[in-house]
Amino acid sequence: MDATKSETQFQKETLRIETFSDGVFCIAVTLLSLEIGVEVKGNATNTGLFHALAEKWSICLAYVISFVNVLLAWIGHHSLFKQLHKTDNFIMITNGILLMLVALVPFPTKTLGLFLQTGALKTAVIFYTAYFVLISLAFRLLWHAALRRKDSLTRGITDVQIKQITRNENLGLICNTIILAVAFINPWTALALSFAMWIYWIGFS
Amino acid sequence: MDATKSETQFQKETLRIETFSDGVFCIAVTLLSLEIGVEVKGNATNTGLFHALAEKWSICLAYVISFVNVLLAWIGHHSLFKQLHKTDNFIMITNGILLMLVALVPFPTKTLGLFLQTGALKTAVIFYTAYFVLISLAFRLLWHAALRRKDSLTRGITDVQIKQITRNENLGLICNTIILAVAFINPWTALALSFAMWIYWIGFS
Amino acid sequence: MDATKSETQFQKETLRIETFSDGVFCIAVTLLSLEIGVEVKGNATNTGLFHALAEKWSICLAYVISFVNVLLAWIGHHSLFKQLHKTDNFIMITNGILLMLVALVPFPTKTLGLFLQTGALKTAVIFYTAYFVLISLAFRLLWHAALRRKDSLTRGITDVQIKQITRNENLGLICNTIILAVAFINPWTALALSFAMWIYWIGFS
Amino acid sequence: MDATKSETQFQKETLRIETFSDGVFCIAVTLLSLEIGVEVKGNATNTGLFHALAEKWSICLAYVISFVNVLLAWIGHHSLFKQLHKTDNFIMITNGILLMLVALVPFPTKTLGLFLQTGALKTAVIFYTAYFVLISLAFRLLWHAALRRKDSLTRGITDVQIKQITRNENLGLICNTIILAVAFINPWTALALSFAMWIYWIGFS
Repeated sequence: MDATKSETQFQKETLRIETFSDGVFCIAVTLLSLEIGVEVKGNATNTGLFHALAEKWSICLAYVISFVNVLLAWIGHHSLFKQLHKTDNFIMITNGILLMLVALVPFPTKTLGLFLQTGALKTAVIFYTAYFVLISLAFRLLWHAALRRKDSLTRGITDVQIKQITRNENLGLICNTIILAVAFINPWTALALSFAMWIYWIGFS
Repeated sequence: MDATKSETQFQKETLRIETFSDGVFCIAVTLLSLEIGVEVKGNATNTGLFHALAEKWSICLAYVISFVNVLLAWIGHHSLFKQLHKTDNFIMITNGILLMLVALVPFPTKTLGLFLQTGALKTAVIFYTAYFVLISLAFRLLWHAALRRKDSLTRGITDVQIKQITRNENLGLICNTIILAVAFINPWTALALSFAMWIYWIGFS
Repeated sequence: MDATKSETQFQKETLRIETFSDGVFCIAVTLLSLEIGVEVKGNATNTGLFHALAEKWSICLAYVISFVNVLLAWIGHHSLFKQLHKTDNFIMITNGILLMLVALVPFPTKTLGLFLQTGALKTAVIFYTAYFVLISLAFRLLWHAALRRKDSLTRGITDVQIKQITRNENLGLICNTIILAVAFINPWTALALSFAMWIYWIGFS
Repeated sequence: MDATKSETQFQKETLRIETFSDGVFCIAVTLLSLEIGVEVKGNATNTGLFHALAEKWSICLAYVISFVNVLLAWIGHHSLFKQLHKTDNFIMITNGILLMLVALVPFPTKTLGLFLQTGALKTAVIFYTAYFVLISLAFRLLWHAALRRKDSLTRGITDVQIKQITRNENLGLICNTIILAVAFINPWTALALSFAMWIYWIGFS
């Protein structure tokens, strides 16, 4: 039955899934801000509000970290889908799993922001970094699904390009796993490593 | 008056409604995550946060179930609209009812997640499964609206294709009704049946 | 400076504003569901949850009313923009005011849902119906802005079509004002009139 | 490698980033309404609800101010991207920083609305106006990134057009800095100046 579909139809299908995925990334990234608010107990004074705002640095830091992570994931998702010509059920499912994880990023973000200044710092950072290991895994799985059938990929893609994406996905997974391992020893070093990874990512890819 | 509209105009109208519907599906699926957060009473410790996170399994399970359900509904909505060439008021209304139900999915999802570990388990599962019977009904009604006038459908659609979609919509409605009936007897079996239905749906459609 | 812009550029501009407006309508309609949740005090039992859910009828009713109202507003916005060929600052501002009101619909909706079963019923219904008088006013203003300059409208639009839209906008404003007036006397009759207006709207337009 | 990309590909890339940015603006503007709700302690009466609603004027004012600010930022973002032909990493990053700030606008908005009627008025207005200085800075930085490489800009753009945009971005930054400075002396005058700036912006640009 698939053989009767024209090339244009396949591209429309792929575009539609990509548009839907873009929507999820876009909403997830904007929803991150929802939890951030400030309260002052008793009578509100200028200095009281100032201190209440200053205490929110940990929540704002968690927001920035997650915003960058989701934005980089979106760029990664986009460069992966650019190589896709056709989708099948397996690609749809792995993409669905990835979106499910992306849409839930506000949960580890909130957890990180709330507990960064508390005694539960280590658990919060482990939970957060483990969550992004899961996202890297979902990316790797999606790429695996795309590679399964030759005709899923865009015509004209070279083996070099395929290898480069595979290398990138593997690298992301390895880096995130190392960061998770470091989080068990020193949570702040783990967060600093995330930051270093971004610099590398932005500068070299 | 309708006779003066060109073919392209009809397709634009249909596309616009589809884009709006896609938006509702996309936002509804991402909003599911909003309720999920974690709190620790008293002084936060690493083990305290760990246990608080571990207790969230029921809310996360409800999230996953609803995410898959809404994603499958989106795929179903898309394959139905692919056969639509033109919309009329009746199609608009039935589509509106469907979207109204889809946008409210976070409500039964929250209810399911909150009461899965409590004595109100059965009522929560009945409410949840009954809600998806309603969604199946709305789908069936939308397809009924599409079939009412011959010229609403895409040119070149075969009777076999029409029958297949009708069969799929009926099957969805029957399956969800059975799951609801089972929920009255054993809630966990009902949830397991939902899961089995997905496997079938993904594997065979 | 405007004279140097091509026809296609004008259409692109109009399309972009329409897409943005569609987004606001779409998100506003889906956000309506966010407030709806259920709680059970003390130990949760099946009958306890059942009664808690049953008590939510007023919030669900408010949700349905607002969903239909925003959906009808979206259809109205769309049919108005179909006649627009070019936008200017005045159209942008009136459209912005309309979007500002549409995006805030969750506020009167929540108010209606929360106080429908209380002694504050009349104030809640007056607030809600007055809010939709404002939205009708914004629509009327947007159409007024579009009519100001001849070249804002699509070429080929007939005077009959213009009159019909003007009539529709005026009718909506008058109906909503009557409903508001009735709300001061009998809130339930006002809500019933809204319902009757929809039936008319859907059946005859 | 960039040399092998066709013109159309560059435009697609730019369009995609613009669509994503539009989504963030659109969601951010609609999310502003989420915090606005009303509560009545004890038995709800008609006059009680009326007074509770009337007290919400400060939150509604903050909502209106932020809605207009984000809408103007969206228009500014659009007119800036119209001059972009190609994006590079630096443009992507500065655009990302801008979006991160836009998505977090609900936070200063809530703060402004909550503390406008309290003794913490000055801190709230300083926080709010300082936030929009940051947004102006991000805009200026984005335009700086766009100007870095000649081929990032649309072909046919004149030096006069470039100068005009540069002037606009600088003007926005200066105006917002002045408003911030005024906020330290008199918060209400600062808000009135914002309002005056809009009138100018809408009337002359």
